[in-house]
Amino acid sequence: MTRSTTVQINGERLWSELESLAKIGALPGGGVCRLAFSKEDKQGRDYVEQRMRDAGLEVRIDPIGNILGVRDGTGPDRRLVLTGSHIDTVGTGGKYDGSLGVLAGLEVLQTLNEHQVQTHHAVGVVAFVNEEGVRFMPDMMGSLYVSGQLGLDEIEPIEGIDGKTIKECLDEVAFSGEDDIPVDFIKSFIELHIEQGPVLLDKELDIGIVDRVQGILWEEVVLEGESNHAGVTPMHRRRDAGYVASSIAAYVRTLTEEIEGLRGTVGALSLFPNLINVIAKEATMTIDLRHAEKDRLIQARDLLHQKINALCEKEKVRPSIKPLADVDPVIFDAQCVESVEKAAEALHYSSMRMISGAGHDAQIMASKWPASMIFIPSQDGISHNINEYSTPEHVEAGANVLLHAILDKAGMSTL
Amino acid sequence: MTRSTTVQINGERLWSELESLAKIGALPGGGVCRLAFSKEDKQGRDYVEQRMRDAGLEVRIDPIGNILGVRDGTGPDRRLVLTGSHIDTVGTGGKYDGSLGVLAGLEVLQTLNEHQVQTHHAVGVVAFVNEEGVRFMPDMMGSLYVSGQLGLDEIEPIEGIDGKTIKECLDEVAFSGEDDIPVDFIKSFIELHIEQGPVLLDKELDIGIVDRVQGILWEEVVLEGESNHAGVTPMHRRRDAGYVASSIAAYVRTLTEEIEGLRGTVGALSLFPNLINVIAKEATMTIDLRHAEKDRLIQARDLLHQKINALCEKEKVRPSIKPLADVDPVIFDAQCVESVEKAAEALHYSSMRMISGAGHDAQIMASKWPASMIFIPSQDGISHNINEYSTPEHVEAGANVLLHAILDKAGMSTL
Repeated sequence: MTRSTTVQINGERLWSELESLAKIGALPGGGVCRLAFSKEDKQGRDYVEQRMRDAGLEVRIDPIGNILGVRDGTGPDRRLVLTGSHIDTVGTGGKYDGSLGVLAGLEVLQTLNEHQVQTHHAVGVVAFVNEEGVRFMPDMMGSLYVSGQLGLDEIEPIEGIDGKTIKECLDEVAFSGEDDIPVDFIKSFIELHIEQGPVLLDKELDIGIVDRVQGILWEEVVLEGESNHAGVTPMHRRRDAGYVASSIAAYVRTLTEEIEGLRGTVGALSLFPNLINVIAKEATMTIDLRHAEKDRLIQARDLLHQKINALCEKEKVRPSIKPLADVDPVIFDAQCVESVEKAAEALHYSSMRMISGAGHDAQIMASKWPASMIFIPSQDGISHNINEYSTPEHVEAGANVLLHAILDKAGMSTL
Repeated sequence: MTRSTTVQINGERLWSELESLAKIGALPGGGVCRLAFSKEDKQGRDYVEQRMRDAGLEVRIDPIGNILGVRDGTGPDRRLVLTGSHIDTVGTGGKYDGSLGVLAGLEVLQTLNEHQVQTHHAVGVVAFVNEEGVRFMPDMMGSLYVSGQLGLDEIEPIEGIDGKTIKECLDEVAFSGEDDIPVDFIKSFIELHIEQGPVLLDKELDIGIVDRVQGILWEEVVLEGESNHAGVTPMHRRRDAGYVASSIAAYVRTLTEEIEGLRGTVGALSLFPNLINVIAKEATMTIDLRHAEKDRLIQARDLLHQKINALCEKEKVRPSIKPLADVDPVIFDAQCVESVEKAAEALHYSSMRMISGAGHDAQIMASKWPASMIFIPSQDGISHNINEYSTPEHVEAGANVLLHAILDKAGMSTL
C-alpha cells in the first residue's frame, strides 16, 4: 500500500471515532450490540447526529430515524452526492460493519471542510436505520424506506422478536424526525463497507471495487416421511425424511461444483422425532443459493427441485417447498464503479473488481439511483462477530478512496 | 392359517386379558403408557401377580421387581422351562409389545392346568422389569439382573429422566420383593413377541421362528467446523460441519446398499447455530448400524470411519466419534429354535426362520441359557405406537406355538 500526496482524510481521527462509537453498546471482549431501535441504537444515533452538527452539516432526521447530514455545493446543479451506511448491529456484532461507512462519510465531509474544498454538487452522509434486520424484518429497512419501496404505514406496525412494534420503539426513544430525505435531489450513492469475507485478504489487496451484488434464493423444504423402528424396518420399506434431507444437503454442494460462481448452503436442518433408533418422520431444512447472474440462480433452483422430487419419489417422502426470499442480483452503475476504480488507482492502492456476497443498503439505493460500493479487507474474513477487525491502514485506505470517488462524482472546484 | 386339533390355548381369554391389562395406563386413542417403575407399571404388575396366584402358581418377586410364576414339574429334573417378557411400555406404547409374551405365558400355564397336563420339568412365566429403557437406562434391565450382568448395587442408584432414582421408585411404590429368581434352576427361555416390523406381514406368514438377533453399533459423531456467512464465504474456504454431517448420513444409506443385510439409520442430526444464512459450526449426529453378523458390522463401521475421516480432512472439520452401544449379534440355541419350528409345523401355521431386528429380553437370557423367540405379525409393521396391533388370530397362533414349544422343552407326560 503506497500513499498518494493528494488530499487525504485523517486516518487517526477516523480510527478514534470508530473506537468512540464502539463504546456505545460495547460487549465484553470487544464487540458491540446496538440492535435496531434499541436504546443503544438511539445513543449511537445521537452521537452521529452531534458529530454531523459539529461538522457544520445541515441535519435531517426522517420519520423512521434515518439521519442525513448535508454539505452544500456551489454549482447550479446542487443535487446530493450521497454516501453512508448504518450503525445498527447484530446481537454480537463488530465495530466496523456499517459504522465504518457512516463515520468515513463524516470524515470525508470534515476533510472537505478542512481543505476548504468546494464541490459543484452537494455532498451528504446518511446513517440508515435497521440494516441488519435481526430484531425487525426486513433488513435494509432504512434504504427501502428512502427509495420508496416500503411505506411508513407498513413499517410502524412491524413487530420485533421481543414483541414490541417499531412504532412503540420510535415513540419510546424519541427516534423519529419530520424531515424526509429529499429523494428528488439525490444524484448517486457510494457506500464504503468491510468485505465480511476473505477474498481481499486471500489476494492481499487493499480495495475491492464492488461492481455487483449476488442474487439470493432462500427456500424452506419440509419433508414428510414415516417414523419407524431403525432395527426392524427393512431398508426398502423406509420412508426416511432424514435420509432425503441429507441427500438434498449433499447435492447442494454438488450443485456449487457444477455451476461456477454458485454459493449454496444448508445452514438449518432439523429432524423429528430426532431419536437414535427411530427413522425420521419429518425433516425441515433451509437452502441458501447465491449467484451474480439471475439465469444461473434459476438454473440452480430448477436442478435442485428436480433432485428433491426424484429423491422424494424414490423414498415415498412428500416434499413441500416454500420460497422465503428471492432477491435479484444487482449490477452497480458503471460510472459510479469507475469513480471508485479511478480513485483507488490514483491513490496507488492495490485493488480488484469484485462481487458483494452479502446484502447492503447500496443495492437497495441502486434500484433508484446510480450506486456502487468500496470494500476493505476483513481480518480472517469474519464479520457479525465480536472479533471482526480491519486494520487502521485499510480503514484509512477505504476512506481515502471514498473521498476521491465522491470528489469525482461531486465535481471538485478547488483542491 | 389352519388349526390343529391337539391341545390349544383359549384365544378369547388371552385376547380379553390383553384388553384388561391395556386398561392400566390406557391412553386416549388406544395406546398404553406404563413407564418402568411408575405407578401404572406397579398396577400392571399387581394385575399380573394376581393372575399368577389365581392360576395357582408359586409366585416370587425379586429385589428389582421381576415377577416369576412357577408350575412345578413331575420328573426328577424339575429345572425351569421359562417363558415371559415385560409389561412396561414406552411413553406412547401399544397393547401387545411385551404384554403379549407375559399374558400368553400365563395362558399357557392355565391351559396346562385345565388339561391336567403334567410336565417333567417345571414351567414358569416371568414378567421382567424395564425392558424398554425409556425412563431408566439400560433397557432389558430385568433380564440383565436375572442373568447376572447387572447388580442391585448398580441398578438402585440409576437416575431416570425425571430425576428419580430406581431405589426411590422401588421404595415409593413397594415394588421389590426378596425372592431372587432361582437362576441355577433355569433350563431354557422362549419368548413370544410381536415382530414390530413388516417382514411376516409382507410375506403373509403367521409365525416367525426367530433364530438370531441383530448386533447393534451405536455411535455419536460430533463435527467441529467454522461458522461463516453463507453469502460471502467462497465454497473452497468453508469448514461446513452441516455439509459433512449430511454427506455422512447419505453415505450410511450407500453402505446398506453395499453390505447385504446391513441396516443403517441416522435418526438424529442437529446443527449449530442452525440459521439459514450461517454455515454450521457444529453438527451432532447419531448412527445406528445393525447386522446379524459381527464381521459385517465391523466392516460397516470401518468403512464408515474411513468415509468420515476423508470428508473431514477435505473440509477441515474435526470429528469426534463416541461409541454409545455395541451389542453383539445373538445366535439362538439350535434346539430351542427347533422346538418352536416343530410346534409351528405341527399346528400347520405358515412360518419362516427370521432375525429379530429389535432387542429383547430373550437375547440377554441367551447369554446364559438356551433361548429362542416366536414372532407374530404386526399390523402395518408398526410398534411403539398407540396404533400397534396384531389380530386375535395371530395372537392365538403365537400362544399355541409357545404352548407346544414349551411342552417340547418341558417333556409332557400326559396330553
